[in-house]
Amino acid sequence: MTVTERAENRPLSPRDPRLEPWRAFITAHAWVTRRLDDELRAEHDLSLAEYDALLTIADAPGRRIRMRQLADRVILSKSGVTRLIDRLVLDGLVERDACLTDARGAEAVLTPAGLDRLRRASRTHLRGVAEHFLGAVDDADLAVIERTMQAVGERACPGGPPDSTD
Amino acid sequence: MTVTERAENRPLSPRDPRLEPWRAFITAHAWVTRRLDDELRAEHDLSLAEYDALLTIADAPGRRIRMRQLADRVILSKSGVTRLIDRLVLDGLVERDACLTDARGAEAVLTPAGLDRLRRASRTHLRGVAEHFLGAVDDADLAVIERTMQAVGERACPGGPPDSTD
Repeated sequence: MTVTERAENRPLSPRDPRLEPWRAFITAHAWVTRRLDDELRAEHDLSLAEYDALLTIADAPGRRIRMRQLADRVILSKSGVTRLIDRLVLDGLVERDACLTDARGAEAVLTPAGLDRLRRASRTHLRGVAEHFLGAVDDADLAVIERTMQAVGERACPGGPPDSTD
Repeated sequence: MTVTERAENRPLSPRDPRLEPWRAFITAHAWVTRRLDDELRAEHDLSLAEYDALLTIADAPGRRIRMRQLADRVILSKSGVTRLIDRLVLDGLVERDACLTDARGAEAVLTPAGLDRLRRASRTHLRGVAEHFLGAVDDADLAVIERTMQAVGERACPGGPPDSTD
């Protein structure tokens, strides 16, 4: 083992400069999602988490999804998803329904008002992604981001996240 | 304007392939933070959000910080931060105290037990960052990530986030 290899393998300390790419990644994610969240709230009275949940329900077959699967896909705790769906139900964007195939399960179903709000909000969201993320990086670097981020995702969660069957 | 420029400037639709780097970024963030969260919970009974809050308090002068500043820095809502601090206070890792310079403000103060838990948890966290993020990407690509992510952060939030003085 060379000196360089030993140096690379030594454990990280909190101030280690090797952490800089990680810090930049976490900070970029925090700021860009906060900006997207601000814009959705201002223009459509939706949080980014609510937008994400509406999109996930809209993409499911029949525009309905089990609560547990929704929690997995939007990366929220089960209690977090319950609170979030409560608000969407109050606003008439989602309905709670018994699961079609399992009497014990509850499903979230998109309403026509929910689909309409999602469609209008997606213009704001996609404009924000283009402006705050894609527009900050040139094409060659975007290709590196796509490739490396896929590698990170695959390494953190090989084969993708498990889908709860509740 | 060339045909290519027009194509690049047309608005994004939800299935647009130009969104792939963004999707990979969001997915990598979700999976790697879920993995880090799982490991902290299993080994130290701390969520990643709790770890992040303890680290933010530890990095503040005197290891104390106003609740409002904490909410800004950890990118949580004010109610989210209140719930999170409630749990840390119950566990004896944080104390609530009157603000030293403003009688209206409340501050979160790290306890010796909180500092000890943070130090032990940081070994797990840094090992996870090395394994699930840094280890998935070679050095040349890490340099691209660092540079592009700094550009994204700066574009989404020029000059960095405002610090609430509350």
